[in-house]
Amino acid sequence: MLMNKAIHDLEKALSPKNVLHELEERYAYSRDASNVPEINSLPDVVVFAETIEQVQQVIKIANKHKLPVICRGAGTNTVGACIAEHGGIVLNFSKMNKILEINKENMTARVQPGVIVGVLQNEVEKLGLYYPPDPSNLAVSTIGGSIAQNSAGARTFKYGSTKDYVIDMLVVTAKGEVLRTGSNTIKNATGYNLGSLFIGSEGTLGIVVEATLKLIAKPQCSKVIMAYFDTLSDATTAVTSIIEQQISPATIDFMDKNAIQTVEKFYPVGLLTDKEAALIIEVDGCQSSIEEQKNTVTNVLRKCNASAIQYSSTEKEAEKIWQARRSSMGACAKLKPNVTTDDVIVPRENLPQLVYGIQQICNKYDLTVCMVGHVGDGSVHPQIPLDFTNSKEYNNYKLAKSEIYELTIKLGGIISGEHGIGREKREHISKVVSPTALSYMREIKKVFDPDNILNPYKIF
Amino acid sequence: MLMNKAIHDLEKALSPKNVLHELEERYAYSRDASNVPEINSLPDVVVFAETIEQVQQVIKIANKHKLPVICRGAGTNTVGACIAEHGGIVLNFSKMNKILEINKENMTARVQPGVIVGVLQNEVEKLGLYYPPDPSNLAVSTIGGSIAQNSAGARTFKYGSTKDYVIDMLVVTAKGEVLRTGSNTIKNATGYNLGSLFIGSEGTLGIVVEATLKLIAKPQCSKVIMAYFDTLSDATTAVTSIIEQQISPATIDFMDKNAIQTVEKFYPVGLLTDKEAALIIEVDGCQSSIEEQKNTVTNVLRKCNASAIQYSSTEKEAEKIWQARRSSMGACAKLKPNVTTDDVIVPRENLPQLVYGIQQICNKYDLTVCMVGHVGDGSVHPQIPLDFTNSKEYNNYKLAKSEIYELTIKLGGIISGEHGIGREKREHISKVVSPTALSYMREIKKVFDPDNILNPYKIF
Repeated sequence: MLMNKAIHDLEKALSPKNVLHELEERYAYSRDASNVPEINSLPDVVVFAETIEQVQQVIKIANKHKLPVICRGAGTNTVGACIAEHGGIVLNFSKMNKILEINKENMTARVQPGVIVGVLQNEVEKLGLYYPPDPSNLAVSTIGGSIAQNSAGARTFKYGSTKDYVIDMLVVTAKGEVLRTGSNTIKNATGYNLGSLFIGSEGTLGIVVEATLKLIAKPQCSKVIMAYFDTLSDATTAVTSIIEQQISPATIDFMDKNAIQTVEKFYPVGLLTDKEAALIIEVDGCQSSIEEQKNTVTNVLRKCNASAIQYSSTEKEAEKIWQARRSSMGACAKLKPNVTTDDVIVPRENLPQLVYGIQQICNKYDLTVCMVGHVGDGSVHPQIPLDFTNSKEYNNYKLAKSEIYELTIKLGGIISGEHGIGREKREHISKVVSPTALSYMREIKKVFDPDNILNPYKIF
Repeated sequence: MLMNKAIHDLEKALSPKNVLHELEERYAYSRDASNVPEINSLPDVVVFAETIEQVQQVIKIANKHKLPVICRGAGTNTVGACIAEHGGIVLNFSKMNKILEINKENMTARVQPGVIVGVLQNEVEKLGLYYPPDPSNLAVSTIGGSIAQNSAGARTFKYGSTKDYVIDMLVVTAKGEVLRTGSNTIKNATGYNLGSLFIGSEGTLGIVVEATLKLIAKPQCSKVIMAYFDTLSDATTAVTSIIEQQISPATIDFMDKNAIQTVEKFYPVGLLTDKEAALIIEVDGCQSSIEEQKNTVTNVLRKCNASAIQYSSTEKEAEKIWQARRSSMGACAKLKPNVTTDDVIVPRENLPQLVYGIQQICNKYDLTVCMVGHVGDGSVHPQIPLDFTNSKEYNNYKLAKSEIYELTIKLGGIISGEHGIGREKREHISKVVSPTALSYMREIKKVFDPDNILNPYKIF
């Protein structure tokens, strides 16, 4: 009855075509990429906004009927951050997907939240500009989602994450106001940095309806260097040695043996499947620097016992390697009916211990694990193919996960470097965030969303 | 009487040597670099903390006696942010000035707030590492102050500002708790970004007592290119054209004719004093890229009507040029008894109009203005030498200042890109920050400092 009234209001505000309420429609929006059975949830209704005013209307209706509002971009979130755990309205941004302006002189882009990251990158690159953040799912994931989760990616090592590129936003608040968080300038020192508070807040503080992004000059050239090692500690020593040469690669990613083999099996690009670990190093810059960086890096890799080194010779070849690397989760998904990914991070010096420890834990619980990650940042994504309907395997997975978090924390790390907390890691957040910090976060939540209608109970 | 009791408590907690309460001592801490007569203010007492526990003690005593606490690093703030406007305790960090750790493998530095930016830069550079933020006063200004104001500098164009390098902090709150804001990892997606809220909050939300900073690899080489132009619009066209070549210089600064002449008069380094504007472009990277970047940039500069181009041939020569550029405020101070600096920023395409407009306004009010700035960011620092005791000149200055802000806003800009609001720009903040945003900022202030003891009434 309540829902009927709410649906009526929503249809009036957004037009019936933008309101889905049949079971099968709602089911299609009941999950994200987190792939953990407990956290699939049916929303009461799914709506598509086409304008900022419509988003304000949705908030008004949500307040009237006391319904949660859960924003959704492409649904690629891996921690259940865009799941309607307590029902309510899923607010889909796929119809607000316009690049409103690319300003070459100011090196900025103004976009709607539903713009796909990869689409934006292509458009700005046509003008010699560059939007660096490159989450692995950039072919489908949206800027709104990137902002909600502060998406990072392989290039974060050199270029930072989403938060380093958002200079301004329009945010619809829980009260329905339109709040501007920044300015159309590269720097801003006029009061508190409200923008940074929204970035990474997983849709719990406000609804980003427009963003202005800083762009940089696109590097003239780049080259991918794949280096293979017999031990991961040789690989991490190589990273420190590259830095010692005062070179900043755009990316220093890694894949372990299982990841190499699984990717090569399903997306063959010529990876060497008998090696323990591979580094994917991309150097970029002007033409002449590429050759010099390549030579310096190669010398370091040889000294650090790299057992084989491959180079991309064209941009297409480089892109093929990255596509393979980014497909690792998809490849893992072909091994078993389900796949989970995780996101742990430690100070880089402890990365070999973390990767080795995760292998041990997964062995103990009879789980296969494929590991990829951003070794330059100390970031690891263990991807575990498994069958949720096999309850023993699923229980083992849960035990392994807890042990992986314990190990990460023991090594000075935290349980999420770039994917967020969402629903899936909520029960673990107090292991890495102090009660004092959590209590201030809760107070901030109350300031922006006193009635707890924005993505309620996510994060904490 | 109240102050006697407070001083007694402070002496007991910090030892008498760390508590200054004589008039002449307090007078020495009554101002900062803002150099605006109205905002000099005597603190009731000045204290030096040596430990985090002592900072907590100061907060406890401040709460007990209802006294404001105003943190102070080197006092180089240009907007009165570290002035004890309502009396109270000035908390000086010059005795908490240790670099606690530089970790080469993790590329991080852990420091106390009183560490001088330039000292930290030198120490990390000895290890081939780099801390990019370079406020002009880096020879004396502190990391604590950099965090309080989110200091930027010439290298912000390529490398970002202080906020992009702080990964973790310990903050003493208004309640005396020690709040940890981040983690010892390069990325962190575990809850709201509390750290970003403190950075740039001008000491109004908490007291930073320790910070962990991200470092990067020090570029192998760099070269400074000075290009002179007959019009500033040629200079800004050159900036866009350099970007079009897909080159990202570390800095693209500028000086107008008055700044060139004034600097050359007092700190002669061979600047060409008959030119309207100069760009200071620093390219950096590996050895071979420097020559290529220099050639590409030179070609662009010639096409954009540069009337002369100079190059640094050694690191020492480059440093000399930067010292001259950074000395512009000091040079201006030699023209008249006083000097004011300001900090306005617009989208880069509007920079020529802003600079030309500021010249017009200052002409109208019979004021000399020397302009330097970070043209890459759209940032201008008009420096006005004047005599505060000449009331006509001082009134003219105040009128000019208001008109400069109006013009900046008309050109889509804001009244501070990097110096902050503090006391001096408080009355202007509502021109660039909406009532909605200000009201959320006030709510956040209440969350962290309900009794308004931390640098009260600054910003808003």
